[in-house]
Amino acid sequence: MSTAPPIKLSKRWHYASEQAISFLMQQAVENTDVVSLAAGLVDFASLPVNETREAAHALLADDAAARKALQYGTTAGSDRLRTLLLEHLARLEGTDVSELGIDRNQLILTTGSQQLLSLVCEVLLDPGDICMVAGPTYFVFLGNLNGVGAETITVHTDDDGMCPQALDEQLARLEQSGRLDRVKLIYLVSYYDNPSGRCLSDERRGPIVDIARKWSKHHRILILEDAAYRELHYDGPTIPSVWSHDTDHNTVVYTQTFSKSYSPGLRVGFGVVPTELVGPLCDRKGNEDFGSSNFNQHLLARVLESGLYESHVEEVCAAYRSKRDAMLAAADREFAGIDGVSWVHPHGGLYVWMSLPEHIETGFRSDLFQMATQRHGVMYVPGELCYAGPVANRPRHQMRLSFGVQTPEGIADGMRRLAAAVHELL
Amino acid sequence: MSTAPPIKLSKRWHYASEQAISFLMQQAVENTDVVSLAAGLVDFASLPVNETREAAHALLADDAAARKALQYGTTAGSDRLRTLLLEHLARLEGTDVSELGIDRNQLILTTGSQQLLSLVCEVLLDPGDICMVAGPTYFVFLGNLNGVGAETITVHTDDDGMCPQALDEQLARLEQSGRLDRVKLIYLVSYYDNPSGRCLSDERRGPIVDIARKWSKHHRILILEDAAYRELHYDGPTIPSVWSHDTDHNTVVYTQTFSKSYSPGLRVGFGVVPTELVGPLCDRKGNEDFGSSNFNQHLLARVLESGLYESHVEEVCAAYRSKRDAMLAAADREFAGIDGVSWVHPHGGLYVWMSLPEHIETGFRSDLFQMATQRHGVMYVPGELCYAGPVANRPRHQMRLSFGVQTPEGIADGMRRLAAAVHELL
Repeated sequence: MSTAPPIKLSKRWHYASEQAISFLMQQAVENTDVVSLAAGLVDFASLPVNETREAAHALLADDAAARKALQYGTTAGSDRLRTLLLEHLARLEGTDVSELGIDRNQLILTTGSQQLLSLVCEVLLDPGDICMVAGPTYFVFLGNLNGVGAETITVHTDDDGMCPQALDEQLARLEQSGRLDRVKLIYLVSYYDNPSGRCLSDERRGPIVDIARKWSKHHRILILEDAAYRELHYDGPTIPSVWSHDTDHNTVVYTQTFSKSYSPGLRVGFGVVPTELVGPLCDRKGNEDFGSSNFNQHLLARVLESGLYESHVEEVCAAYRSKRDAMLAAADREFAGIDGVSWVHPHGGLYVWMSLPEHIETGFRSDLFQMATQRHGVMYVPGELCYAGPVANRPRHQMRLSFGVQTPEGIADGMRRLAAAVHELL
Repeated sequence: MSTAPPIKLSKRWHYASEQAISFLMQQAVENTDVVSLAAGLVDFASLPVNETREAAHALLADDAAARKALQYGTTAGSDRLRTLLLEHLARLEGTDVSELGIDRNQLILTTGSQQLLSLVCEVLLDPGDICMVAGPTYFVFLGNLNGVGAETITVHTDDDGMCPQALDEQLARLEQSGRLDRVKLIYLVSYYDNPSGRCLSDERRGPIVDIARKWSKHHRILILEDAAYRELHYDGPTIPSVWSHDTDHNTVVYTQTFSKSYSPGLRVGFGVVPTELVGPLCDRKGNEDFGSSNFNQHLLARVLESGLYESHVEEVCAAYRSKRDAMLAAADREFAGIDGVSWVHPHGGLYVWMSLPEHIETGFRSDLFQMATQRHGVMYVPGELCYAGPVANRPRHQMRLSFGVQTPEGIADGMRRLAAAVHELL
């Protein structure tokens, strides 16, 4: 036992100390026999073992290339991979590299896209600065905002994503109350949002960029576009990014990751950032780690060059499409008869967002959560974690249901268990 | 051209915006024909291509193991690697795992040891908090301290490292001036210091832990032991860590990396931390990146298990030993005749620390730096970067000379060029 005087932690640590994810992981550890519809892991069966084996073999058979990969890289990351990512981005946007309007120096490679999200908060936000978000939104990013002491303001959101008109009105109100000068960021998960599965509609993308510009009166209001799920697209139209509407590429910070479409274990993500942010983000990243794994960047470059990546993404999407269908079918089967229950039909991503009747709370301390985990052996992410502000003011009757990890049979089983828990409460 | 309003960066970014390393890298890019005695890269020839090929082959041939490595890991890192690191640490300390007095949950795997250094600053230090350092010390860590707005106080340092008596006296003075309550950290590069090459002597290690305890009156004063160069040991005694003197393991945060002894491209480092710090550090790391590359952790575990690691370290040390000898021989040849020039003879690490006559400044704007880079084609790290406080108060006549990257012939050539530049100024 330690009898030493206590360690005095920083104020910043106290800002960030409420980590819902830790509680969830603890629950998972303590309840190993539950069917988890909570975990954000990706499908085990479609992890790219063969593709990575081929790429590693080719990389490590080439002595000079292998040495380069095993040496330090630069803070911003491998030139080779960044060049390939320009081509990749152009393909996703349905255009040519020459039409993108950026060069590779505006790309920064990070440890997953999570590190890019964190770095943007670090270099941009002081305590009391404001970030506008959708409701619900990605709960880990809410932790990043808390971690820098920023204020989070939720903008009305519907099935087409954040509402431009509501955003405009919120910003007008902030100007009236003399607080527009604190607004620095608008955060959007633009494709198959975590947790809601919603896709920001094509029609809303340009207007949101215009609104950010319109209200950039004191300083530039940036948009942080989190496109983590972009390539997990199962049906419906393919839509150009919010970033593509920012023709000067000075307002939108775009970020994407290979964690969902290829392998989270490699931890390779990237950001496309306005020229003026490259230096500040690299300075900060230099302090944090001087650059993410150079080896993995070279490995992923081989995967992209070989053409193995695109065929793998097709396989991954086919696997997730059938899982999504399994979850929606199970929702119809198990929940369609319950009054006041509704859910979003996602066209991509990993999540189905379900709303229960308002009097059924879903939080960690709720009867439903206890009953679901203890008696029926199923776990979900409580929806209230995905909103900013005091818990009392948040919607508390929703759930994020993930179809990423379970098999279609596991999904059907989990949904049956969940419905049983809900029925027991009704 | 951007005509948008300016981006308003955070205060924290402004703290951290003076990045000497960026200037050095820029110089390296602009002067590709110079012999760099500045770069902190490791020896290209001894990068572990064969070892990594074998480990990758074994890992990716085992389908279940490969999937586990390609999936998300935990924020603290792979259990398997952490278990192996306990054995590794026990070997280095000359003891058994059962005698270490910690368990694997006190190990956190990071993106190089740099990320551990950064995380400790984040969770511990508020603006105005004080960290005691040696003079000179690792300049990137000074950037971390600046980045959180901490105050850095330099403790008198000689060829045996930081002087315990001087540390004790400084802390007494801080108490007298009512500032002891701001002291939170003592930072030590305990083996073959970057930049000075000095090793903190065995006799000083226990007393420094005792002093940290003695002055822990308001809260616990922690020691951050940076053992990045520990395994690059060429001659002289092997010394147990400072951490080994902290028998309760509640005062010293120990950090080490595989960047120097194996491969920086994998970016695997680790920390051994007091129990109470595990949660805060993992919370912060969760916000930054949810964990470093799981794949690389599994790869390195294979390397350690196979026994390939220890034989590789022997090869690496043999290569660096001959490079160190080449640099010391060249220093004797080129500089012994110059009055007022002296240098440290390191028993490990990657650096020779050289002092010139006091009137010869070595900074980026100095005549010597210009002459060395522009006319004589050689580059070094100016010693003044490795001190805290206003530049005017720092020693400005020293240089960090790295023998890591160049061949013995390149080292001889670089030292000849450097001596020519110095002679021209005398």
